[in-house]
Order: sequence, then C-alpha cells, then structure tokens
Amino acid sequence: MGRWEPNARGRLAQAAFELYGERGYEQTTVAEIAKRAGLTERTFFRHFADKREVLFAGSEILQDSLVRAVIDVPESAAPIDAVSAALETVVTVLRDREFSQRRQKVIDSTAELRERELIKLASLAAALADALRRRGVPDLAASLAAEAGVAVFKVAFERWIAGTDEKDLSELIREAIDELKAVTAG
Amino acid sequence: MGRWEPNARGRLAQAAFELYGERGYEQTTVAEIAKRAGLTERTFFRHFADKREVLFAGSEILQDSLVRAVIDVPESAAPIDAVSAALETVVTVLRDREFSQRRQKVIDSTAELRERELIKLASLAAALADALRRRGVPDLAASLAAEAGVAVFKVAFERWIAGTDEKDLSELIREAIDELKAVTAG
Repeated sequence: MGRWEPNARGRLAQAAFELYGERGYEQTTVAEIAKRAGLTERTFFRHFADKREVLFAGSEILQDSLVRAVIDVPESAAPIDAVSAALETVVTVLRDREFSQRRQKVIDSTAELRERELIKLASLAAALADALRRRGVPDLAASLAAEAGVAVFKVAFERWIAGTDEKDLSELIREAIDELKAVTAG
Repeated sequence: MGRWEPNARGRLAQAAFELYGERGYEQTTVAEIAKRAGLTERTFFRHFADKREVLFAGSEILQDSLVRAVIDVPESAAPIDAVSAALETVVTVLRDREFSQRRQKVIDSTAELRERELIKLASLAAALADALRRRGVPDLAASLAAEAGVAVFKVAFERWIAGTDEKDLSELIREAIDELKAVTAG
C-alpha cells in the first residue's frame, strides 16, 4: 500500500491538510499553503481553484471512476449490480483511512464545507443515474439505483471513517449493499 | 381539497412566494414581504427567522410528522415498512402541487437555497435513522432504511413536481418504493 511520491499537487494538498488541522480551515490562506509546500501561490492556482477545492479534488476523481465503471459493467448486469461493481472500484482510490479521517474532520468543522460535500454527493447521484440511463435503464429505476448506491457509499464511508473496526472500505460497501437488499426485502 | 384560510403566517408565506416569483429571491426584502402581506416586519420576524426560512418552514413540519409516524408504526413492522408508512403521511402535508412547483422554482434559481435543501434532506435522513434506532432497529439497517426512504421521497417528489402525469404524491411514493424493492432485488 506504500506511500505515494508527492508531486507539486500532492505537496500542496498535504500542506493544506496539515494547516487545516493545525490552525483551522477558515484561518488558513493559500499563501500559507504554498509556503508550507515550498511552492508559489501561482503554482497553487495552477492545481486548485481555491483552498476549498483542495478538499474536494478527490470527489471529482471518484465520480469519474464510478461513472466509467458503471458504463463498463457488462450489459446483462442489473442496475444495482452495475452500481455495486462501480462502488468496488472506489476502493482503489480511497485507501488511506487516516487521510480520509483528517479530511472529514476539517469538513465537519465548517458548515460551508459540509454543504459542499452534500452537493458533491447529489452530483454523484445525478451522474450515476445518467450513466445508468445510458445503459438503457428506465428513468425511475436509474434514479433509485443511483440514489441507493450513493446511500450505500455514504453509510459505508461513515463507518469506515468512524474506524470502529478494521474492515476495509470494500468490505463495508459489500456489507451495506447486502444490508440494503435485506432491508428493502422487508 | 379546499383552500386554507390564511392567518398572518400564511399571508406572509404567500406574499414571499409571490415576490420571489415576480422579482427573484435575492432581490426581495423582508420589508417588501411584510408590506405585501399588509403586516409589519416585526410580525414577519415573529414567524420566520429570515426570508430563507419562509421556504423551509414546511420541511420542519414534514420531518416532525415523518419521525412521529415512524415511531407510531406497530413494532412488528420491518424498518422499510415503517418508513413507507411514514412517507404515506407526507401526503397529508403536501397536497398543493402548484405551490410546491413555485417553491421549487425559487429554490432551483439560487445556489444557497439548493444547498439548504440538501441539508434539510440530510437532516431528514438522520432524524429517520434515529427514529428507527429508537424502535430497536440495528444501526446499519436503520441508516440504510432511512437513506432509502429519503431517496424514495426525493425521486417521487421530483416526479410529482415535474408534473408529467396526474398521479398524486402518495401514488408516486408507492411506485418508487415498489421500484426500489425491484431494483435492489437485482
């Protein structure tokens, strides 16, 4: 699972997370982030639109890989199985729980960031529903399978972050999907 | 389905909705809302914290009645059936589609309001999960049944608002629950 070699983008992200943790998100400036990373503000803005986007750059990657995975699942698969398969790919992006925990702590501390996170989840559901419709899934089924998938991701991610056990995210996602199936079976 | 007799609160809400529709949410002031309703600003602030809350006062009522309904469902009911039953009560609060459509148009026009709506939905999911846990439903099942319920509500509400057919909200909720069950059965 070895550490990644940080490039400019990675160094900026790392510096930002350190500073958000040390002095709080609102108190941290882009100038300070760049300085801590040993880079210029100009370089910062080549990689991120603002200090908020450092926290959400991963969400875009996540959404893109989920959508691609949904499209790539064999056509015979039912919508929920396409979504399950897509969620499995998430795990390859989200491996570092400690990092995700630190990120979540920053987000939970600021109303603006919590709102931003909800928007990203809503956008994820819309993108998944769209990918399912492109597979020929009817509108209502596409919307519900996408929303169910996001619910599974949200609940599994919260459990993973809470870190009450040693299960990895893929395991927690499988558990959540199984539980959702059991719950909706009534 | 007769029209309700507007009291001060109702007159303020009506005036606010009219003005949001006519000149836009951001351009409307509390003073203008009070004037249109034939009331004072002081009276406005006795009923609403600010001009945004006029749009979301109904969300609180909705959440309260959903939570109460979940608690009231016979103990033998499975979590998803408790949530279904709770959603059925929603219909008694949300009857006026034209009003809901106008409200949605205002919300969709402003990023701040769209964010607020997502927060209200997240808070609804948390409240429903909490109500289920108080029924003795285990944590994971409670979270997933609550998220599934909110997904059903969201999708059914969007279809209702879109107004492509003449089904009422309760019918659309039942259809969405049935579809969710079919979708998760794979």
